[in-house]
Amino acid sequence: MVKIPVLKSITEANALLADAIRARFVQQDVLVLNIIASPGAGKTTLLERTIEKLDGELHLSVIAGDPTTSLDAERISAAGVPVVQINTDGGCHLEARMIQAALGQLEVADADVVIIENVGNLLCPTGWDLGEDAKVVVASLPEGDDKPLKYPMAFATAQAVVINKIDLEPYVPAQVSVLRENALRINPDLAVFEMSALTGQGLDGWVDWIRGKLAEKRES
Amino acid sequence: MVKIPVLKSITEANALLADAIRARFVQQDVLVLNIIASPGAGKTTLLERTIEKLDGELHLSVIAGDPTTSLDAERISAAGVPVVQINTDGGCHLEARMIQAALGQLEVADADVVIIENVGNLLCPTGWDLGEDAKVVVASLPEGDDKPLKYPMAFATAQAVVINKIDLEPYVPAQVSVLRENALRINPDLAVFEMSALTGQGLDGWVDWIRGKLAEKRES
Repeated sequence: MVKIPVLKSITEANALLADAIRARFVQQDVLVLNIIASPGAGKTTLLERTIEKLDGELHLSVIAGDPTTSLDAERISAAGVPVVQINTDGGCHLEARMIQAALGQLEVADADVVIIENVGNLLCPTGWDLGEDAKVVVASLPEGDDKPLKYPMAFATAQAVVINKIDLEPYVPAQVSVLRENALRINPDLAVFEMSALTGQGLDGWVDWIRGKLAEKRES
Repeated sequence: MVKIPVLKSITEANALLADAIRARFVQQDVLVLNIIASPGAGKTTLLERTIEKLDGELHLSVIAGDPTTSLDAERISAAGVPVVQINTDGGCHLEARMIQAALGQLEVADADVVIIENVGNLLCPTGWDLGEDAKVVVASLPEGDDKPLKYPMAFATAQAVVINKIDLEPYVPAQVSVLRENALRINPDLAVFEMSALTGQGLDGWVDWIRGKLAEKRES
């Protein structure tokens, strides 16, 4: 008897496709990161700095999600790596089927790392597996140090958090140390990076973490 | 023959209920504002300052939406106005049925203005009518001055935009004037308020706008 797959929901279909994407990248030894953050938390600037830092050492490719426009992809492209823009037409998250479509357009043959920049949103993207090895949350300090408590799902499902815009600490009513504590309260296993992607401060630890995750994947 | 209402979709059911809520508030001469913004843009601080400013002049009531926690409602309650917290359990927007439920719990009998603080999200809330007279977007300067271009729906459907955290302009790579221009490019009819809710700078124009909207509603 033929076993007929029954898809119980859109998210289940998404999970199956995400697993297929993940299996493909395991074969190719490519590390895949899914970056999640509020609008304007600094995802694209983080990508620009990461690309600069790893230039000549690792090959990066980027999939950039946005409700409209290709502003982010233009910045990434100017930084010198292959990039595909996904416009969600107002949709609040990326889905595995969009990643699959993007992979048809993206040079990943010699990529070491594929970074997915999700739509600017701390809620919707958290429930959608894109086939990544790790989710990373970017938490911008001027948004306040209470965000992990108010948007716990993003922090609970991530492996790392980048606390960004720490150069603004003297000027905002939020503290890096409190944001760190609140993030670790939600998820004690988080790798935490305190950073100003704008100035480059704190970038080294983050880039080392990427190197470590890639090495880990290649050894397994 | 009895006419049977057929609801074509969840959003259509939402729109019908929103119209019913709006009709109720027309009768009661209550102004209803729906505040939409990214996480951490300063919605709650704006509410605290607005409450202080209008204390003794107008009666305010607040409905605060959040994916989890009642942190915002606690701050509003401390500011001295009736408040109901709606937890969406991770959901990314408020819906009219939630407002209807909240109104069963909220003192609005002598309210002049009901302010709805939507879930921190620049995308999902824009398509959901809550029965408000006007949507207001809070755009935080450190999020960048390109946000109206990347999240146009929020700005296109709003009547006013509060450009918040302008005290941070010297420290961030974003300009108040560019954010204003980009907002007006999306929606030339927007009332624009440049503000630091934290310091109180620019609050008077915003509070005058509320007074004007209320007067307009009572005259109509």
